[in-house]
Amino acid sequence: MSRRLGSQTVVLGNRPGIISWASIVGQKEHEGPYGGKFDQVLPDELNGEQSFESAERAMLESAVTLCAQKSGRQPSDVQMLLSGDLLNQIISAGYAARNLAIPFYGLYGACSTMSESLSLGSMIADGGYADILICATCSHFCTAERQYRAPLELGNQRTPTAQWTVTGSGAVMVAGGAAAGSAKVELTHTTCGRVIDLGISDANNMGAAMAPAAADTIATHMHDTGRSFADYDLVVTGDLGHLGRDLLIELLGQKKVSVPEAKLFDCGCEIFEARQDTHAGGSGCGCAASMLCAHILPELASGHLRRVLFMATGALLSPTTTMQGESIPGVAHAVVLEHREG
Amino acid sequence: MSRRLGSQTVVLGNRPGIISWASIVGQKEHEGPYGGKFDQVLPDELNGEQSFESAERAMLESAVTLCAQKSGRQPSDVQMLLSGDLLNQIISAGYAARNLAIPFYGLYGACSTMSESLSLGSMIADGGYADILICATCSHFCTAERQYRAPLELGNQRTPTAQWTVTGSGAVMVAGGAAAGSAKVELTHTTCGRVIDLGISDANNMGAAMAPAAADTIATHMHDTGRSFADYDLVVTGDLGHLGRDLLIELLGQKKVSVPEAKLFDCGCEIFEARQDTHAGGSGCGCAASMLCAHILPELASGHLRRVLFMATGALLSPTTTMQGESIPGVAHAVVLEHREG
Repeated sequence: MSRRLGSQTVVLGNRPGIISWASIVGQKEHEGPYGGKFDQVLPDELNGEQSFESAERAMLESAVTLCAQKSGRQPSDVQMLLSGDLLNQIISAGYAARNLAIPFYGLYGACSTMSESLSLGSMIADGGYADILICATCSHFCTAERQYRAPLELGNQRTPTAQWTVTGSGAVMVAGGAAAGSAKVELTHTTCGRVIDLGISDANNMGAAMAPAAADTIATHMHDTGRSFADYDLVVTGDLGHLGRDLLIELLGQKKVSVPEAKLFDCGCEIFEARQDTHAGGSGCGCAASMLCAHILPELASGHLRRVLFMATGALLSPTTTMQGESIPGVAHAVVLEHREG
Repeated sequence: MSRRLGSQTVVLGNRPGIISWASIVGQKEHEGPYGGKFDQVLPDELNGEQSFESAERAMLESAVTLCAQKSGRQPSDVQMLLSGDLLNQIISAGYAARNLAIPFYGLYGACSTMSESLSLGSMIADGGYADILICATCSHFCTAERQYRAPLELGNQRTPTAQWTVTGSGAVMVAGGAAAGSAKVELTHTTCGRVIDLGISDANNMGAAMAPAAADTIATHMHDTGRSFADYDLVVTGDLGHLGRDLLIELLGQKKVSVPEAKLFDCGCEIFEARQDTHAGGSGCGCAASMLCAHILPELASGHLRRVLFMATGALLSPTTTMQGESIPGVAHAVVLEHREG
């Protein structure tokens, strides 16, 4: 039986449930407008470790463990971990999976990883291939700066279009079958995105590079499902930032998708305030992941939000492609989250 | 309905089919013992491009296109591409997906990517979430040397334990439902591996780092399914090489899994001959992928092989973790491939 709808969307007919979630962030995120909503806050950038990389993977491991514990389970009860991060060879996810000992599918979707993992995980749970799985990701300001830009010690000035990589992690437990019984949030659809590249080549303007993919996936999702923004309480994007969000609205207009601006919630625009001097906003896998777990999922569970399109966006560049003069492709995967009546 | 069997294995009750495959390799692989079986051979290391990285992604793009064409389809008929590679930010897969315009899930499993993609892809097709998808990966000797070891221009001497990264790509079309109708090969089970680390820290001995994960996944698969090597014509590993293969046999012995050595086929041991001076054998995502498409799948389609456990293995290190003194975790995912009577 095909579960496909239109060109890129899948119907999750068994409506897998989201039964637990956890978020951990750094001090700067804690000082932002949603600071009180995160489950845990790192004491400092090193998180008790010897390197920023170790600090990042320890944060991810803690988020997954906390997510399991909040559901009354242990990591050993989790049948699969779908996870990735921004670092080369996704070492945060790989080493966390080693310590957690959960069977592991490694993903790379740059900042789209939270919705990529939910997209794959929701199909796996919907189909009965796992009863309990966790989708998780993370990012860390200091590791991302070192790898993608320059070591912090150089003190480089940031361009106005730059975004600030969030130090944060989010972990979401997806349940299928009987295990989903008590869920207050369910997954109903997912749309797998295409890689879109409109020729942006400025590695300090990720929002502009990702906006075309975001527009493509939203427009495709609406077309596939016959829906519009009116059918959603919120359309949540990952980390387009202020410039990318404006560009998304413009691109959707060109595609004849009208956007009521109050319904477009970009985690990158929301996680920091202007006084925090992050220029175009937050970014990184951990931005959408931590905001999903700290704000969006609780609002869905309580019924304040009834139906949300959650779509993290990723820029698929590397320092090598930038040096070789390539433009920056983007990708965005979407999942539909709904409040379930208790 | 749960489709789980034991702790880590999934039963693919609808038996998705493999209806097309394609392989492309470099000159050195063409000169090896399976050289006549690959679909295409690159003219040289640059493959008509300006950089090794461009050469690698063009090879992957060609393999996916050829795989679609061999089934009488175009890339636009493919509903999902599950792909990754060894390069930072999986740029080969990401840029190939941009040009192919197929909805794309990016994976990172190091050299385990071919079986990781088949593991995820088989569940997606089995569940009806896609009718036609392609799982694909690639590697390139020159890009891998530059990124993981040293630029070729340095002329560094290789250690005896070192393996030679295969320049090659493989693409496999998986079909569910009616689209699988004519398949001569079907997928029946998949086992998702855990990340295993026995403390190997020599980045020039990948085989030893991956063998523990291979042993863990094979032993778990046999336990979950109640099977032994007697139930398989071949157990195919990805790129353990000569040292890793010996260690796998030893580790399986410790787990009381007896190994008839003639049934253990390691693509890394097979793709090159001793005269080719590759030391411990071949490696890289493209090793298992190209050998699967050039040799294993044709043998299954013809019925010369009836049932194969295919399991590529990956070492989840990065140059950063090596410099930081970390040991090297490995991962291995397995899929069961069977000949289907026509």
